[in-house]
Amino acid sequence: MAKVYCFTSSYMQFAELLREYLPDVSVVNINPSSTGIVDAEEERDLLENAEVVVGDPRISATYMLRCRKLKWFHSTYAGMKILNNSSYTIEKRKIHINTHTRKSKRPSFVLTRRSTGSKLSAEYVLCYILAIERRLFQLLDYQKNKEWKMWDMSHIRTLDKVTVGLLGVGSIGEEVAKTCKERGMKVIGLVRNIDATKHKSPDVDVYLTYDKLPKLLEESDYICCLLPSTQETRNLLSGDMLAHCYRKRGVLISIGRGDVVDEESIVKAIRNKWIGGAVLDVFTEEPLSAESPLWSLPDVYITPHVSGWSRAPEFKEEIVEEFVSKFRMYQSGKPLPHIIDWEKGY
Amino acid sequence: MAKVYCFTSSYMQFAELLREYLPDVSVVNINPSSTGIVDAEEERDLLENAEVVVGDPRISATYMLRCRKLKWFHSTYAGMKILNNSSYTIEKRKIHINTHTRKSKRPSFVLTRRSTGSKLSAEYVLCYILAIERRLFQLLDYQKNKEWKMWDMSHIRTLDKVTVGLLGVGSIGEEVAKTCKERGMKVIGLVRNIDATKHKSPDVDVYLTYDKLPKLLEESDYICCLLPSTQETRNLLSGDMLAHCYRKRGVLISIGRGDVVDEESIVKAIRNKWIGGAVLDVFTEEPLSAESPLWSLPDVYITPHVSGWSRAPEFKEEIVEEFVSKFRMYQSGKPLPHIIDWEKGY
Repeated sequence: MAKVYCFTSSYMQFAELLREYLPDVSVVNINPSSTGIVDAEEERDLLENAEVVVGDPRISATYMLRCRKLKWFHSTYAGMKILNNSSYTIEKRKIHINTHTRKSKRPSFVLTRRSTGSKLSAEYVLCYILAIERRLFQLLDYQKNKEWKMWDMSHIRTLDKVTVGLLGVGSIGEEVAKTCKERGMKVIGLVRNIDATKHKSPDVDVYLTYDKLPKLLEESDYICCLLPSTQETRNLLSGDMLAHCYRKRGVLISIGRGDVVDEESIVKAIRNKWIGGAVLDVFTEEPLSAESPLWSLPDVYITPHVSGWSRAPEFKEEIVEEFVSKFRMYQSGKPLPHIIDWEKGY
Repeated sequence: MAKVYCFTSSYMQFAELLREYLPDVSVVNINPSSTGIVDAEEERDLLENAEVVVGDPRISATYMLRCRKLKWFHSTYAGMKILNNSSYTIEKRKIHINTHTRKSKRPSFVLTRRSTGSKLSAEYVLCYILAIERRLFQLLDYQKNKEWKMWDMSHIRTLDKVTVGLLGVGSIGEEVAKTCKERGMKVIGLVRNIDATKHKSPDVDVYLTYDKLPKLLEESDYICCLLPSTQETRNLLSGDMLAHCYRKRGVLISIGRGDVVDEESIVKAIRNKWIGGAVLDVFTEEPLSAESPLWSLPDVYITPHVSGWSRAPEFKEEIVEEFVSKFRMYQSGKPLPHIIDWEKGY
């Protein structure tokens, strides 16, 4: 009987759902305690026997590299930062992962990632673009003061007058592009190599390569950063890069991975009025420290890494269904989608 | 030479634009002072000679009924409340209009209204639905306290799980329906008579008649009120009607005319938790009095009658272009669109 090891947070009750979807498969549930400790017997079984693991990398990543027979690991996260960084902080607890893995000893197993949840991310972006265009935050202040200030609304525009620049046009980027295009926005997409971009989205009006980043920043009312954390993307927007936003005073929306731009650079860009604002869902260190000046900077909106996340039942089911569909491909020897490239790191 | 009287607020610089668009027409600009006083000579000319007037009803409505030769008045407002109510308060100045006009002495001129701006209204609705779905207001509070509370975001859903009920499916309603349908929402539309609904929108899933209003309220996550002010619609949602929202605790979005529901009824519905919140752009009396409890009620968001309004140049041009297109129809004797029915009042 085929076997799947399920190594996710217990609140997900992932194993129960998996057993429903895969009645012909033996589902082994690895059940860490609240402090993340796995029972010794369970751990031995996992490390010696597991060939297929579906896991939440926050709790399972440290085990992954030690599973001797591992053939395929499917991550229930969309992002892979946990595998690329030397350390990953979650709730003040650090999990150390060998930073040289990718270079020195490339793992032999296949690593895939969740691809669902793009619609949640796309609607997060739409939500904040609309909120800023419609002066929602100012209107809240007026309401607090019981002020009726309709004249301040004099330059409201519809979204078909807006240009959005997308840094990264993967599965989330395509969904964001589609959502922006629906409302008539102009969409610019930044990619590594235009010719090598396998699937060109019909919702991207103009593709630009990384060397044209300043042009994208100059022309965009919103700069939506969806990039994964890789050697190429880290600090891409750090330093004085955001000064290129000056003409349009575009708003930075950051929902990819937090290390594409460091905090100081955002603070500087806001203080110098290079950018009109920032909507930040991801940070170099998460949770964002209470000492960070970002919390109280004007025109900066902080959200706790929730743009593509939900615990609503339908999303849990989507994640399970995606794994099940991949598992059936795995069983029949078909190539798996959303495989992580150990070299590129995404 | 054909003549058009232009009677709009001077900040609009409407006459200048009209002259550009209609070089073959004599455009008379009625230029009231900042206190609304019209020069005696200009007033005499208007009242005695004007056949075609394009005007902002806030400043021109009191003159309209006294123009002896008036054949057509085109209003630059979408709403007609100013013509239906006995008094209209604007900036603490009351303009009295004969309340019995419609019944006792129906005017002989044709009254048309602006139909542009629907997209602005539709995006206002989308903006607030997204802001509420994505807990934007809660996230602002967390930010103020420097709190990283991702667990509270656990039941975020995408808009394809949302049902919106539209009270009124005219030109604005259709645009709202289209915008909601784009994001996959279920759309219920309330109309007077389903069979008589000339143009059935492909974006409305279910049409219901006024007698089924409780059903609409029960089934909708958002109740979007777009109704004009008429005898039939006034206080339609007042009293205990909103108690029907109890099951889903739908959110009221009011952007039509303010007298469809009175303040007390909204306050009661919020306090009794019949509705999950209210987004209010229109009120029985505007501006909303500083004494109103609505300003500081939880889950109530007040905006100063701006949902479909902008002074951005492109919108001014849209309004002028609409009038110009109607004017060419008028000249060639074609029937005008968006004529107000004096009986129905919209």
